[in-house]
Parts: sequence; structure tokens; C-alpha cells
Amino acid sequence: MSNISVQIPSATTAATKDLYPSRVADKPQIMTRQDPVLYGSASEGPLDEQALALYEENGFLQFDALLQPAELESVIQELNRLRQDETLKGTAQCVIEPESRETRSIFAVHEISEIMRRLCANPKIAAIAEQLLGSDVYVHQSRINYKQGFHGEPFYWHSDFETWHVEDGMPSMRAVSCSIALTPNLPQNGPLMLIPGSHHHFVSCVGETPEDHYKQSLRRQELGVPDEESLTQLAQNGGVVSPTGPVGSVTFFECNTMHGSNSNITPYPRSNFFVVYNSMENPLVDPFCGLPPRPNHISERERVIKVRDL
Amino acid sequence: MSNISVQIPSATTAATKDLYPSRVADKPQIMTRQDPVLYGSASEGPLDEQALALYEENGFLQFDALLQPAELESVIQELNRLRQDETLKGTAQCVIEPESRETRSIFAVHEISEIMRRLCANPKIAAIAEQLLGSDVYVHQSRINYKQGFHGEPFYWHSDFETWHVEDGMPSMRAVSCSIALTPNLPQNGPLMLIPGSHHHFVSCVGETPEDHYKQSLRRQELGVPDEESLTQLAQNGGVVSPTGPVGSVTFFECNTMHGSNSNITPYPRSNFFVVYNSMENPLVDPFCGLPPRPNHISERERVIKVRDL
Repeated sequence: MSNISVQIPSATTAATKDLYPSRVADKPQIMTRQDPVLYGSASEGPLDEQALALYEENGFLQFDALLQPAELESVIQELNRLRQDETLKGTAQCVIEPESRETRSIFAVHEISEIMRRLCANPKIAAIAEQLLGSDVYVHQSRINYKQGFHGEPFYWHSDFETWHVEDGMPSMRAVSCSIALTPNLPQNGPLMLIPGSHHHFVSCVGETPEDHYKQSLRRQELGVPDEESLTQLAQNGGVVSPTGPVGSVTFFECNTMHGSNSNITPYPRSNFFVVYNSMENPLVDPFCGLPPRPNHISERERVIKVRDL
Repeated sequence: MSNISVQIPSATTAATKDLYPSRVADKPQIMTRQDPVLYGSASEGPLDEQALALYEENGFLQFDALLQPAELESVIQELNRLRQDETLKGTAQCVIEPESRETRSIFAVHEISEIMRRLCANPKIAAIAEQLLGSDVYVHQSRINYKQGFHGEPFYWHSDFETWHVEDGMPSMRAVSCSIALTPNLPQNGPLMLIPGSHHHFVSCVGETPEDHYKQSLRRQELGVPDEESLTQLAQNGGVVSPTGPVGSVTFFECNTMHGSNSNITPYPRSNFFVVYNSMENPLVDPFCGLPPRPNHISERERVIKVRDL
């Protein structure tokens, strides 16, 4: 991969076929995935054939100790600093829990924090994303998710790709999310749950996207919500798993893997750093819902920079 | 144990010292338990010394297959029948989920269902309750808890005894709850969580009990809620565990063991039958909050019948 960063111009939907129509029909539908899952191969490393086959089959990969807690000390300090940053609470980048007014998520953290920028560009992480997507990659979105103790709220089932496609104009399934545990992720503190194999199907949701939907959808999702029948069918095929792990454990999951999480009433907060890598060969076009795109801190359109040059 | 059922008269609080004051002070407090945990011994059976020691130490016991799924077939049919009983939905015995209007709990099921009455009196279950409490026992409360799939709500931390003492006048800690899994209880579908060892302490909660508090507290608990600092301290000592298991697995937990459960967004409902045995030697007195007692379907005062004669 060369060392030159590229600005990719945004195309228009006029030229781009909508492979995954959603929020256009009265009834939900399960469609077949049109894209490959895996774009790279074992010869490129770092993952071997077995790991790649697991990713292709299940739509996620769990690493119990990809990063060491010692590597993450400054990241965890930064996590706590950002959480307590009162000026940040008033900004659009910051999402607040509806009931407790605590910080739930901070978006585009790699742009406001040098430490988080370096974490996004961590070579161990970046190399895996590049291999899975078979190309250079850039940061489509980064965020900290604080799921507080005692009152952490559930996050209902969704495919990230559904939203990124409809609201952000991501044309194809060629992106991968990476979740890095900054506190232990336990079975009891509302860990990420995934439906293995769900990424092979696209659940087309009902309804229509209203303008500025993201302002409330980041707090409580109501559109782009998969129906219960489709979820039941996906779970009958693949089950529901929750890959837990200590600080430094890392989950890569494919952009179309159905996931969600339960509440957290335990005293143990569950805080993760979350970064989405999109392939440089999968540039965003105009959103397929026909509305203006969401802001850059949620869906990067301007700073499309190879993660190796970030 | 003789075969004669006894009606135990209700005493007055005038004669009964309040060993566990709660909802009377401005600040929460962790107090030491004044009562034994274990009242019986291994010689009485069916549990051996090791099991009894675990119960004494942790405040609960989990049996992966105390009942066989085949024994529970009619119970599960009855569970589904009762859930769909629309006339029941209008009664005080039935608690509805605030958002979905689905049935969440049905109280005093042993009084409206012969099948559930027999389950309460199941000799395998009753013998354990009698051994733990070292006496004859009666059903203080029975209920079905339906935690539906997709939208099952969390149930915040609480000690049952705190409520039973303050609102129902249960004088001493000499009761045990028994939860029978009627669907698989999985790590992901909002299983019961317990804080091992928490039963050795009594968390005195802040506030004052208003009249008819139970009408809303059964939906959303706001009083008798332990403070976060006390919960953190209890969890630091004992951790948080969730004893999961298949249909027929049974959890006995001491009346003062701190417990709760997270939400359930999975497609898998979590339905349990829940029965509380109180010692015949621990009859209810007037509620320690000074208000009239809650109704019999929540807290039995009239049909105090040895479970062997039920």
C-alpha cells in the first residue's frame, strides 16, 4: 500500500444503483447480501486462513488480548478526561443518556484527541481492517461508548450498514467495525451481542427517514429498526452470542452483522472505543434516502485519509 | 412434620421490635444481619453439608436439573394459557409492562391454577425450603414472571426482604425464594443476577413509603431502592453472578440476597415461576412502615397453610 493520502470525491446516487433498498416499503424483507464478506486473503497477513474463514462465516472475530492493558493506560485516562469534559457535553459530537444526563457517546474522538487518533491508526488494528477489506482503509466513524453502571441503557438490534447505506450513502458492504474494550466486558454489564451469520442477509426495514433523524436516533433508535420476525429468523439460524473479554480485548464485526446490547444495572461500567474502517474503494455517495448527508463527525466525507497516514 | 394446617394470627408491631429499620433516615446505611441464614441441618436432608454451607456463604443455590422438562410440560402450557388470558389482564393480580402492555407478572397463581398450586407443593422443592428454614413453610407469594423477548425490561437491584419487612411486616429473615426456569435462562436474555454474600448485610434505604406504593412499585421500583455506594461495596466483596440454566433449573435464594436483572432484547423470552416460602415460625406482623398491609395476592396473611397441606 502506498503512502499517499487521497481525497475521494463524493459521487451522486444518480450513478449508483441502490443494492440494498430499505425504509421504502410497508413490509420488512430479508434480502441476500450482494457483496463479498471477505476482500483480502491469508497471504497478505496478519490473519491466517482459519481466522478469515471464521470471519466470513460468522461476521465477527474476537481477540481476547490483541492489545495489552499497559498499551491502553493513556487511552483509559483520556476516556475519563473526555467523559468529564463539560464543554464537550454541549456539542453535537456528544450524546447524553436521556434519563441520567451522563455522557453516552462521543463521536469523532480521533479528531479531538491525539491519543485516540493514534489508537485508530494502531498498526495491529489497522492491518486487520486492511486485510479484511482487501484495500487501504479510512476512518468512517470513531466514538467512545460509555455504558455506565447502574443505569446503562439497552441498544436495540440493528445493522450498522443499514443506517450507513440509507442515511450516509455507503454504497456497498465493505466496512468493518472494531470495538476495543476499555473496561472489562462481562456477561452481566450489557456486552455487545451479535447474531452470527446475520451479515449474509440484509434486513430491509419499513418506514421513511425524516430529516435530521440522527439527532434523536443516536439516543433512541426508532427508524431502521429490524422487525421481530426477521430477527427471530436470523437468531434461529445463528443464535445470539456475546463475545466478552478483559481490557484490551477487541471485536471486529462486519458492517452488516446484526448486533445490539442489553441494559447495564451492575456497578461495572462498560466502556469501549469504537472505530469503523471503510474501504478506500467504497467511497460514500449521496444518501439513498434522498436527504442531505449526516454531519462529518458521524459519517466522514471530507477527511478521507488512509489510516496509515492519519 | 405433622399434617395439621395452622392459621397464625397476625401480631402487632407494638410487640415486635424493628430489627431492620429502612426508609426512615435521610442516609442509606449497611447494617449487619441479625438473623441466622440457615435454620436447618444436613441430618434432615435432602441437602448435604456442602450445599448448605454454600447457601449460608453465598445466599443462593443453583440446581441445573432439579426438575425435568417432562415434569414441567403442563406447567408451561399453563404459563402460556395464563399469559393470554385477557380477563386476567384487568385484575390486580396481573402486572403489565408499561410500554408494550404485555403481561409481566401474575401474582398468587397457585390460587387460580391447580397446576401451579401443585408446583408450589412439589415435594422436591418444598423439602429444600423446609430444610433451609428449619421448619414448616407456607407460600408467602407466588408469581409467574414473563420477561418477554425484544422488549423485556430490566429489574433494578433490591432485597426482597427489605420490601417484605417494611411493607408487609415480615419480622425476621427466615424466608427463601425459589425461581424455576420455564424457558432457558441464558446469559443474554436478562437472567437473574445475584450479589453473593449480600444477604449477610441489610441495606437500609432512604425515603418514606407512601400509601398504596405497591400499585406502581411492581411496575417500576422507586422506593426501597438500595443506593449505588452500598451496591458497589457489596459487589466489591461478592461480585455479581447470574446462575443460568435450562428449563427445569431452579435457583433458591435467601430473602435478603441482593438481586436484579437486565433487559432482554433477544428473541428468547425468559419466563420463570417464582415462589416464596416463609417459615411458619416467622408470621407477618403489622407493616413496619405503619401503613396498612399490601393485599393478600402479594403478601399472604390469610391462607397461611403448610405447603405440605396446600
